Amino acid sequence: MKILVLNSGSSSLKYQLFEMPNESPLCSGLVDRIGLPQSTITHKVFPQGLEKVFKMELPIKDHEEGLLQVTKLLTDQDAGVISSTEEVKAIGHRVVHGGERFATTTLITDEVKAKIEELFALAPLHNPPNHLGIVVAERVFPQAKQVAVFDTAFHQSMPPLSYRFAIPKEMYTELGIRAYGFHGTSHQYVSKKAATYLQNPRAKIITIHLGNGSSMTAIDSGKSVDTSMGLGPMGGLVMGTRSGDIDPSIIFHLINERGFSPKDVNDILNKKSGLLGLCGFSDMRDVKNAVSEGNEDAKLAYDLYAYRIQKYIGTYTAVLKGLDAVVFTAGIGENDAEMREVVCKDMNFFGIILDKEKNKLRTADIREINTEDSKVKVLVIPTNEELEIGQQTYALIQK
Amino acid sequence: MKILVLNSGSSSLKYQLFEMPNESPLCSGLVDRIGLPQSTITHKVFPQGLEKVFKMELPIKDHEEGLLQVTKLLTDQDAGVISSTEEVKAIGHRVVHGGERFATTTLITDEVKAKIEELFALAPLHNPPNHLGIVVAERVFPQAKQVAVFDTAFHQSMPPLSYRFAIPKEMYTELGIRAYGFHGTSHQYVSKKAATYLQNPRAKIITIHLGNGSSMTAIDSGKSVDTSMGLGPMGGLVMGTRSGDIDPSIIFHLINERGFSPKDVNDILNKKSGLLGLCGFSDMRDVKNAVSEGNEDAKLAYDLYAYRIQKYIGTYTAVLKGLDAVVFTAGIGENDAEMREVVCKDMNFFGIILDKEKNKLRTADIREINTEDSKVKVLVIPTNEELEIGQQTYALIQK
Repeated sequence: MKILVLNSGSSSLKYQLFEMPNESPLCSGLVDRIGLPQSTITHKVFPQGLEKVFKMELPIKDHEEGLLQVTKLLTDQDAGVISSTEEVKAIGHRVVHGGERFATTTLITDEVKAKIEELFALAPLHNPPNHLGIVVAERVFPQAKQVAVFDTAFHQSMPPLSYRFAIPKEMYTELGIRAYGFHGTSHQYVSKKAATYLQNPRAKIITIHLGNGSSMTAIDSGKSVDTSMGLGPMGGLVMGTRSGDIDPSIIFHLINERGFSPKDVNDILNKKSGLLGLCGFSDMRDVKNAVSEGNEDAKLAYDLYAYRIQKYIGTYTAVLKGLDAVVFTAGIGENDAEMREVVCKDMNFFGIILDKEKNKLRTADIREINTEDSKVKVLVIPTNEELEIGQQTYALIQK
Repeated sequence: MKILVLNSGSSSLKYQLFEMPNESPLCSGLVDRIGLPQSTITHKVFPQGLEKVFKMELPIKDHEEGLLQVTKLLTDQDAGVISSTEEVKAIGHRVVHGGERFATTTLITDEVKAKIEELFALAPLHNPPNHLGIVVAERVFPQAKQVAVFDTAFHQSMPPLSYRFAIPKEMYTELGIRAYGFHGTSHQYVSKKAATYLQNPRAKIITIHLGNGSSMTAIDSGKSVDTSMGLGPMGGLVMGTRSGDIDPSIIFHLINERGFSPKDVNDILNKKSGLLGLCGFSDMRDVKNAVSEGNEDAKLAYDLYAYRIQKYIGTYTAVLKGLDAVVFTAGIGENDAEMREVVCKDMNFFGIILDKEKNKLRTADIREINTEDSKVKVLVIPTNEELEIGQQTYALIQK
């Protein structure tokens, strides 16, 4: 059975087509710069384990036209992998914010779409294009079942102690202000893999997702019990351009004492902070190059990035009242061996002892990189949010 | 030698007179509601270890008049403890913000006063009345040495990893935006006592100051290496009316999506959040009464207060790479045995095992309340910021 996974952004459509239940990806791609004169499509197919890439540049005025172009590619004689769009039995949509309404993957109905719209205020940058992607997909693939997989759903198991802030109660009851958390699909995917690897469904695990955005989650017996992002995707870890945790006093100081507008400060903390703010480079590879050239700002940025992760390992060990494994995942987590080494340095108190040689090896699948005598397992597990969405979509429509 | 300790607030003057070097308090008091028609003075003297209280109500138009009233009481036939103000050899002033300029207790000169004025932007509520208290004291006690003891000084030993935020570098270099920390005098006082008690000057200690404002500090070998308050006194732990840590996204959500003004949000997070926001009571004793009556909001507030402290114990154990002792101090830390029990519950991973019976006993001085087999010492140490200011002032003028 063919399942299409769709991630619809403000000016982009990411897609991947899976053959289920054997989970093999047939093709994937990205429609980008939608609405601009020169939109682009990158389309990849995987015949016999190889990768064949098709690139196009053409004007695409909106998401519907973008998705129609994707259907052309899917069924194209050369680039295609299916003979008719009717082969697509279901579409799994990534939806960032499910609020408190959606704790699991959900078949999309008019009521579900209305609820996703209601959540626009909580995720003004993400839910509107996610919603648009659903509406467009219903028109382009009318025969397919539409399924929503929420980035927040996995974190709905958090207890009030973790999701409530110490602000007026009515801000929660009336405005829905609480911690929702993000990257749930990734934290869920790698923590399931880790629990299987550990052969311990009750394991206490800290998952460390270090990508464009970054977050950490405390997982007990397969359930998220605390996570570093809250209402929006700005808090917690240091990111490429986002500040992560900061003293809220700073925001008011900039506005009241230094004459910044709230919009300025929001932009600064979202787009000009993090690694970029500290040293001028937002990409970790550039930061590392600068470190190797003796750039002290880059060194501080690199070390602060690691220090924040170490602090959260401490925090979440206190939350979990123990620790069985830490899992590194996503771009930086999977590929930056040096960052993993810095994060695990001198963490023996927590039972974490890294094997520096194992840490440097690269393999495609799950890797254990701790020493034999480390009480805590340190794992590198490649994340695959698209596959997780595909699996959850497939599981739902099988019911 | 007589040393006067002065804490000058926006409409109040707190004072305490010590006989040094034997550290005995001769009297203490509070001039309150300065500038209002009915100002009050509460003055306490301690003859032969007893406490004798004098209360007055009279109009006091400004701080200078307030301090003159204090001199009258100090030399009064009935309430007095000295025969002439000239017996006061030095005045130790509490100054909240010393920026990066003041890492130790400092003899006040015109240059020092000017620097304290420069820091008004970083502590707009506190430094102006602290500065005023100095100016007034110079006029009323012209013969005394004036000394400034800064709330931030103890935390100046923090490394950049702890005091820098992941925001644009120039916000630090040009605007001085970094973590300064507060309650330094208290954290320093109790951590010195703890190190002496442990007979280990290199101890790794977490001090937990739970009063009107609350903060925690990670202390390694007598030095502050990280602390929970940052630029201002809003972040970190849950407090009576202050939120402590919150996702910065919430601030922008309230302003951009819900129509609050920045001033509204600042007021809410400072004055209507914390315990008050969660359950309607800002005083911990009221919260506990409500909990005992089955109030679920109060239960959440109480538990969230403890949960945040537990998280910071985890965080700072990661910062210190180990842990020898935790110290509870200040109003709630010294008196709320139940809170200490909740905080220490299930913290065996960190080597913390509370002795519930010892925890309930009350004595005046330092108490060890862990079990025999607890790897980490759990101590209750009454703080005394006035005495610490008196000691530091005395030590400075002895040089």
